[in-house]
Parts: sequence; structure tokens; C-alpha cells
Amino acid sequence: MAKKAEALTSAYDELMAKAKEITILQTAESIIHWDMETKMPPKGIKLRSQQLALLSRIEHRMTTHPEIETLLSKTEKHPDYDTLSELQKRNVYLTRKQYDEQTKLPEELVVETAKQQAITIDVWKKAKAAKNFSTFKPELEKLLTLKKKAAKILMQVKATATPYDALIDIFESKMTAEKIARIFEELKKGLVSIITKCTNASKQPDTSFLKRNISLDVQQKISNELAKFMGYDVESPKAGGRIDETEHPFTTGYYDDVRITTHYYEDNLASSLFSVLHESGHAIYEQNLKPEWIYQPIGTGCSSGVHESQSRFVENIIGRSREFWVYFFPKLNELTGNAFSNLALDDFVRAINHVRPSKIRVEADEVTYCLHVIIRFEIERQLIAGEIRVADLPEVWNRKYNEYLGVDIKNDSEGVMQDIHWAAGAFGYFPTYALGNIYSGQILISLERDMPKWRHQIEEGNFNDIKKWLVQNVYQYGNLYDPAVLIKKTTGVEINVKPYLEYLNTKCSWIYGY
Amino acid sequence: MAKKAEALTSAYDELMAKAKEITILQTAESIIHWDMETKMPPKGIKLRSQQLALLSRIEHRMTTHPEIETLLSKTEKHPDYDTLSELQKRNVYLTRKQYDEQTKLPEELVVETAKQQAITIDVWKKAKAAKNFSTFKPELEKLLTLKKKAAKILMQVKATATPYDALIDIFESKMTAEKIARIFEELKKGLVSIITKCTNASKQPDTSFLKRNISLDVQQKISNELAKFMGYDVESPKAGGRIDETEHPFTTGYYDDVRITTHYYEDNLASSLFSVLHESGHAIYEQNLKPEWIYQPIGTGCSSGVHESQSRFVENIIGRSREFWVYFFPKLNELTGNAFSNLALDDFVRAINHVRPSKIRVEADEVTYCLHVIIRFEIERQLIAGEIRVADLPEVWNRKYNEYLGVDIKNDSEGVMQDIHWAAGAFGYFPTYALGNIYSGQILISLERDMPKWRHQIEEGNFNDIKKWLVQNVYQYGNLYDPAVLIKKTTGVEINVKPYLEYLNTKCSWIYGY
Repeated sequence: MAKKAEALTSAYDELMAKAKEITILQTAESIIHWDMETKMPPKGIKLRSQQLALLSRIEHRMTTHPEIETLLSKTEKHPDYDTLSELQKRNVYLTRKQYDEQTKLPEELVVETAKQQAITIDVWKKAKAAKNFSTFKPELEKLLTLKKKAAKILMQVKATATPYDALIDIFESKMTAEKIARIFEELKKGLVSIITKCTNASKQPDTSFLKRNISLDVQQKISNELAKFMGYDVESPKAGGRIDETEHPFTTGYYDDVRITTHYYEDNLASSLFSVLHESGHAIYEQNLKPEWIYQPIGTGCSSGVHESQSRFVENIIGRSREFWVYFFPKLNELTGNAFSNLALDDFVRAINHVRPSKIRVEADEVTYCLHVIIRFEIERQLIAGEIRVADLPEVWNRKYNEYLGVDIKNDSEGVMQDIHWAAGAFGYFPTYALGNIYSGQILISLERDMPKWRHQIEEGNFNDIKKWLVQNVYQYGNLYDPAVLIKKTTGVEINVKPYLEYLNTKCSWIYGY
Repeated sequence: MAKKAEALTSAYDELMAKAKEITILQTAESIIHWDMETKMPPKGIKLRSQQLALLSRIEHRMTTHPEIETLLSKTEKHPDYDTLSELQKRNVYLTRKQYDEQTKLPEELVVETAKQQAITIDVWKKAKAAKNFSTFKPELEKLLTLKKKAAKILMQVKATATPYDALIDIFESKMTAEKIARIFEELKKGLVSIITKCTNASKQPDTSFLKRNISLDVQQKISNELAKFMGYDVESPKAGGRIDETEHPFTTGYYDDVRITTHYYEDNLASSLFSVLHESGHAIYEQNLKPEWIYQPIGTGCSSGVHESQSRFVENIIGRSREFWVYFFPKLNELTGNAFSNLALDDFVRAINHVRPSKIRVEADEVTYCLHVIIRFEIERQLIAGEIRVADLPEVWNRKYNEYLGVDIKNDSEGVMQDIHWAAGAFGYFPTYALGNIYSGQILISLERDMPKWRHQIEEGNFNDIKKWLVQNVYQYGNLYDPAVLIKKTTGVEINVKPYLEYLNTKCSWIYGY
């Protein structure tokens, strides 16, 4: 019996050693990706796509190595399997899931996809700068073909109803397009009602001063100050983070090496300000995962939706709150050489919370934001189903923007080419942005219950206790649960749009006085 | 017969496909290394050492894969082997060399070394900052033990006389410590004679103005201007290069993605100025290798010594020439807001060519520089032979500095810990710095012969024709020849210190009027 148990432990440990190697390789790949987006000389793209393809091939071989099947079987079929802890079982489950999915994907498809992704991102950048969809189109078509092939294979393994569901599952485990469509229906109705009240309000916030020129230098200092507030260390000699510049802000990294990016526009301080808060929200999640889970499958964020709930929580629920600006407005004035000193705090808060349908998702206000996401969800659902083609994208996009947001898209750079996601092959990712918002509303209710004085703490510039609460209620669980389970655990209820809508409505009724 | 030839071609092509994969992996590893030195948040070091260890393991498995032996044998033993071109044969030779050496090195040794190197570099940085050799010592000892183990193994495969020779061979193929010692003996004698004449001269150049404060911002602009002069593109939307900041300047990269680093000191403009010229000299070599040789073993620089001949040629023979400053001095004044406008050109040129024994190799003048190298060569030769221990290093170092350069080392940060090389495990590398200088003197003679008007072109800011000559006579040969063969081909003679000594003496006699 002791010997048997030993065999189980040793098979499990060996399995975890393999998982560790895979994780380490993935973290190396993400450095290479980060470099491609931030530092790589433009000419390097061809070599880079070869590097990424090779690393994908190596990763694929590691994740599908027959030894993993042997170790998995030994573990799963062991008579003492039930003696494994909940954590260990989850690790086995996640390794099995990855193994089963990856073994079904042909190596050439994986390699080809990695190579094409690097190329499509590069072409997207140039096409976006040149406002020319026609150069982007053929590369996106190639990538879409590869992604659809993978989706069809994954649909079998994951036993999802559609290929698109298989893609969603990569980012939000066990979520389906049908469920999302239902949720988004309710969300959309609620948002449209709030938007109508806001746009009909007699008194509209003045936002003109947000266009004041603030030098990039100063904006960088503000970014560092925001990072400091969050406890996202980018400056000390023991720093675990960075802030760099990219066209499209993102977060990458793992535990002690986490990196965010932002984009500075001289005439749009709010852009870098809220993107830094947003990405820092992702970053502190990664940095505060359980240290002892490092290199294990459970040692990552739960899902893209849950990750987004954290970034949006920090960006909006904290970062656009009046309380945060009670603390930060004087600092902002200090750092900008009193650029906003002739302004009342409340007018500033109103401005950063204004609601106005617009064209660019990452610049969108909090209320209209999810409509941008819903449009992308509807389009990619049809795209993967083959109901629309890549060539149709601009027309479909522009029509929906006109219909949902009442805006007139003038060119594809402010239209269908505004985001990197499809160029990077991340179909199925977009809906998680809205799911994250919805989760954040539920999480707010739990926070209010546990820490009724949280707003007061924020006024005093103390984010630390809230972070501790987030560690306790979200971060510490890593990838121990599927997102639906975690959200139930943290908020006591299933996914539910009402808290988020209510949060928005309360704030807007103050801003717009309706 | 046709079928046989086909078998040869296919074995050779498959072999080159393997070589290509190895090269691509190595370029990915060098990005990870570059990131470690330039951008990585300090806390990331532990994860980084794991990544580098894993990538080393993967690389080692790729280079020692039995399939490579099969393909090598098929190629080498093929009856039509002689029909292969010179280039193809060299590719086969280089692949064979790498395979034979790597297969003899146990995987664990390779992995352990990669991990230890990352750790030792990290500890070196901290120990240097803290001026504390005792924290550096145990890590360097661990690394040295690993390196000596590897050297003993490589000595067998390479059939060198000593383990140290096996290490030298990694950087300068077929060079030996004995030969180097002989060459250095002659070099040292010549240098000491020049140094004596300079230090005894009645009129010493005024160098005080080189300590004038020049903001980092301006120094960066100067760096970009120098890069532009060299045709090392770091600014255009199609740039293939970068300039970043590190404690110790270096060059890394491959073909279309080449990166140099420098270090800016506000009160030492010359430091960044000449390090940028130096590293750009390396960079343009890499960027101008034959495009059609990319991914082949011949598609790299020839040796560390030859590489150094190129960087020193640009840094010194071009960069410290009066002619270069005829062109660049007005630019320098323009970029620095006339920081040196009250100065005569000749006084500036004298200052940057002053000869004065000092403590720091990378800040050393052109004449005393090689004495720094000779000290390191003598020490590491004894270290690898076990004649001195790591614990002895500070004492031996300080004694030799006193003896050779007459300077008094006050702490180990300005002494034995000044360079990264040993921390990075690069034993056997240092002598190539002096070999490079010697080669550069020989190359100068060939250039004078082929392009007698080169000095005039430099005065006009035209480096392009000289670069073309370097492409023609050095860069284009890549790794087709061993360094001794290439130097003979380019300069018509074997390695010979006289031209370099004569070049120095001519310049110094002008500077010091002896």
C-alpha cells in the first residue's frame, strides 16, 4: 500500500515537473512576444516569426509528449487517486485538458498559426497606419482559415456545440456563445436605457479640458505614480514590473516578471491614465498569485473574463470613482504643473465619467464600452460560423456601429482594424471583456458587504486593504476553479448583469442628474 | 550516379534544415539574454535563469540529436562528397565540429552552466555595486568549476594542449595560449616603449573638458548621429537596430535584428561616444553578412578576434582619427549647444587620444588598453590551470595592475569585478580583444593600399566606401574561414603586431610631439 502510494506520488511529481518545463517555456515565449510588440527593430519581423514558429513547435512537442499520457494515466487510474488533494486533482485535470486538446492539433497547424500570427500582426500595424484594409485582408483570411481548422478540431475534443464555442472555451472555460448571447441581450437593454438617459440629460459634462496638452514626460510620471498607488512596483531596485509603450496596451508576464504597456497621446491624458490603471489591475493579479503554486497549472489567473473583471474593477470602479480623485486630483495637479487647478474636483470626475457613443473601444466610456464588445462578439460568431467573410468585415462593422452606437465610421483604421485581437488570432476573446465588467459589478457588491468603508480608504489613498481583499477573494484561487465556480464562490451568485447595470445607473444618475 | 548525387544533396539539405532550426533557437535565446541585461525587472532573475537553463537544454538536445550524426555521416562518407562546393564543405565542417563538441558535453553540465551564468551575472551586478567581492566569490567559484569541467572535456575533442586552449578555441578557432603569450610579449614591449615616450613628453594634452556635463538626452542624440554615420539604422520605420543602456556595453543580434548597448555618464561623454562607435563596428559586421547565407553555419562572424578587429577599427582607427573629427566636431558642437566651441579641433583630438595608465579597461586609452587585456589573459590562463584560485583574484589583479600600469586599485569594483566576462563564464574571451587590435592594424595597411584617399572621405563624413571595402574584404566571408586564414587572405600576412604598433606610434608621435 505504501509502495502504491509512492508510485502515485512519483507519477504526479513527474507530471508536475513536465508541467513546470512547459510553463517556463511559455514564459520565455511571452518575453519574445513582448519584445516583438515593444522593442524589436521593425526589420526583425521575419526572423521573429521564425522564432515564434519554432518555439510553438517545441512547446507543442512538449505538451503532447507521450510520456505525459503515460504519467497522466498512471495518476488517474491509480487506485489511490482519491487521496490526492483538491489542488493536485485540479492540476491533473488541467494537464489532461491541455494534453488532450494539444494532441489533437497537428504540429504543422500550430507552427503555421504561430508564424502567420506574427505576420498578420505586422501587416495589421502597417495597414492600420495606412488606413488600408485591402493589404490586411489576405493575411487575416489566411489566419482565419487556420483558426477555423483548429476550432473544428477543438470542438470535437471539448465537445462544444460549435467551433466558436471551442474558441471561447480557450479564454473562458465552459462558457458558450448561446449563454453569452442571452446575457448580452439583457446587458444591451440595460445599457441602452442608461445611455438614453445620459444623452437626453439637459446638463452634459464639459470634457474639453481632457484634451489639454500634457507632455509625455509628465504622463510617464503620472503612470509611475498610479502604479505606486496600486503596489505595482516598477521603480525600486527590486521591482517586478515595467511600463512600456505600444500601439495597443497589454499586460504580460508571470509572478516576479510582469509587464504592462500603455500608449501616450499628448492631447489625451485620460487614455494613458486609464490604460495604466486597467493594465495594473491585470498585473497585480498575476503578481499576487499564490507563490507556492508557481510553475503549476493552477498557478495562473482563472480566465480571461475573471482577469478582465480585475482590470476593469481597478480602472473603473476604483479609478473613475469620486473617492479616488479626492486622493489623486491634487497629485495630478502637482505632477502636471497645475494643468487642472482651475477646475472643481466634481467637474473633473464628471468629465472622466461622461457617456458619449464613440468609435474606438479602448477610448470608450464605461457605459457604451460593452456595446463595442457586443458588436465584436456578434461579428466573430458569424465569422467563425462562415456566415460572413473577411471581405464583408468593414461593411458589417460600419453598419453595426451606426446601428448600435449611432456613429459614422470614416475609415477602417477607426473601424474594423482598430484592435489587434483578430490579427493576433484571438477569436473568442472579445466577449470576455464584457463578462469581466459584469463580474466586476458582482464583486463590488461583495466588497461593499465585507468592507463597507472601502470608499473612505480610497479617499485616503489606501488601496492596500482592498488589494488584500482581492487577494483573499480572487487572486489566491489562481486557476483552481472554472470561472463560473469562482464567481459563485466570490459573489455568492451565478453570473448576473444586474449589479453592474445598477452600479452604472447609480453613478450616471449622479453625473447627469437624472 | 544521378540518384547518388541526389542522396547527397538531400542529406546535405536536411542537415542545413537542422542547422537552421538551431540558429533560430539561438537567436531567440539571445533576445532573452538581451532582455535580461536591458529590460528585465530585477526580480525576474530567478525565472530568467530557469528559462535560460531550459533553452540551453533544448539547444543541446537539438545540436546533439542522433539524426545529425546520421546526416553528417551520410554527407561526409558519400562518394560524391568532393562535388560539394567550398561553402557547403565548410558548413558540413562547422556542423561536425559543433556536433562532436556538444555530444561530449553532458546535458546536465550545459544546463547547470546556463543557470549558474545567469545567477553569477546577477550576483556580480550587486557585488560590484556594493564593492563586495566576498558575495561574488562563491558564485564565481561554482561557475569556474563548471567551466573547468567543460574545458577538460573539450580539450579531448578539440585535441588542444591544455583546457584553457579549448576555451580559447571557442572564441578564436585554432588559436593557442602559447601563441598568444608570444604575440603578447612582443606587443607589450612595443606598447611600454610608446607609453614611456608619451608619459615622458613635456607637453601633455589637456583632457579636463572631457568631464564637462553633457545631459543624457544630448548624449542619446549624439549616439543616434554616430549610428547614422555608420549606416547602423536605429531610427527609420524600417530600422534593423537599437541602442539601449546597460552597465557594460555589448552587441547582440543577427542580420535584420542587431542591437547595441551603451552606458551614459553625464560627466563622461567620451565613454558613450566611443562605446557606440565600438559596438556599431560589431553591429554593421553582423548586418552586412551575406544575406543568402542566413541560417547557415557560415552565416556568422568569423571569430571574436576578427569581430573585435572591426569594432576597434571603427572606434579607434576611424573614430579617434583627426579626419573623423574634422567632420564630426562641428556636429558635436551643434548637438551639445556649443559645449566645445571654445576649443580648437586639434586640442580635442589630442584629448581623446591622450595616453595615461588607468584602472578601467573599457575607459582605457588606445595604447594602454592592451595591457589591461594582457593582465586578464595571464590571470585566466593560471586560473583555468589551477595555479591560482578565485580567492586569490583580488590580490593577483591588484599586484599586476600596479606592476603593468602603475595604478593602485582601491576596491574590487574598480579592480577584478569591473568586467562582466568571467561572471558570464566567458573565460578565454579576453585575449581576442588584443588580437582584434592587432588584426585592425594589419587591416589598416590593406585599406591604405586599396583606398589611399580613405582619410579624405572620412573628413567629408563618407564612411560608405570604407564600409563597402570592409564588406568586400571581411564581412562577406562570414565564417567561411578560420580567423588565421581570413587574416592572411585580407592582409596578405600572418598575424603580426608591427602594423598596429606602428599605427599607434605614428599617432602618438603627433599627439605628444616626440
